[in-house]
Amino acid sequence: MSGEPKILRDVLLASGRRVKLYRRIVEADGKTFEKDLVVFGSSVVIVPVLGDGRIVFVRQWRASIAGWVLELPAGRVEPREDLLEAASRELVEETGFRAGSLSVLGSFYVAPGYSDEVISVVRADGLVEGQPRPEEGEVLRTVFMRPEEYLGLLGKETLDLKSIAGVLLYMSTG
Amino acid sequence: MSGEPKILRDVLLASGRRVKLYRRIVEADGKTFEKDLVVFGSSVVIVPVLGDGRIVFVRQWRASIAGWVLELPAGRVEPREDLLEAASRELVEETGFRAGSLSVLGSFYVAPGYSDEVISVVRADGLVEGQPRPEEGEVLRTVFMRPEEYLGLLGKETLDLKSIAGVLLYMSTG
Repeated sequence: MSGEPKILRDVLLASGRRVKLYRRIVEADGKTFEKDLVVFGSSVVIVPVLGDGRIVFVRQWRASIAGWVLELPAGRVEPREDLLEAASRELVEETGFRAGSLSVLGSFYVAPGYSDEVISVVRADGLVEGQPRPEEGEVLRTVFMRPEEYLGLLGKETLDLKSIAGVLLYMSTG
Repeated sequence: MSGEPKILRDVLLASGRRVKLYRRIVEADGKTFEKDLVVFGSSVVIVPVLGDGRIVFVRQWRASIAGWVLELPAGRVEPREDLLEAASRELVEETGFRAGSLSVLGSFYVAPGYSDEVISVVRADGLVEGQPRPEEGEVLRTVFMRPEEYLGLLGKETLDLKSIAGVLLYMSTG
């Protein structure tokens, strides 16, 4: 292994609704390699903490797996949108709750083997209840649960990586 | 919101090296919607625990972000491959370590908004050191670190979601 690989070029294979698929040509050790690259951008996952210690989750129907997933509220940071603005907007859209304060617990690449998506975990406190207004085609229900209850569902209910990471990160930072 | 959405059909937009991008047509509430679907399949992320409590990480150069990411060893479960077989194989390939025992801590969808990828977190104990043999085009270096040291790098080094989830899940299960 000698030195850092170099990106030679990207070839667009297809554009979806929100993602684009590229073939990325890379040079490493004098050889060229082809890598998949899914371009999605930035996203946020919110850990909304109620006064009594419960967390606001959503049980969401996901087309990608044709089934329900118990998740934290989350969504994409739109172009020219601020991270905390996006967190605030997604929280209201999916759960109806408005946040009194927001703080970033960490940012992580979601699937660096083939995707550029970077997700920020945002803690939300001082919640005030309101009416959810999901986007068209979003099918979800709000669920209130203590973090320990959520962890107890491991192996029993369909869960996702951003939410387990978000809940554990929240628990580890107090 | 009435009843469960229905998948009408999938249209293949493009095939990459390891992922395929589809347009998935879904019916919900009598309307049709288009969703992105990246098909990747199953993967494993390994938490390799040394006798002295340190974890074996890899610092890997990732084409998708043209930079280095500090990750747990991980990889795809190949067709017809068993989950623990894949964990054992990826651990040897990326770090050289052979595992005496492996146990699944949990399985999670990685990005259910657009991907079918499901990742299993596998704890590896009883490690015996050997020679790494990365696949062609994989650029990585083994790093040994206590879980608390890894968490201390939050905000300082580029990290990823499967590894923060894996480390925190390992810490929470003792």
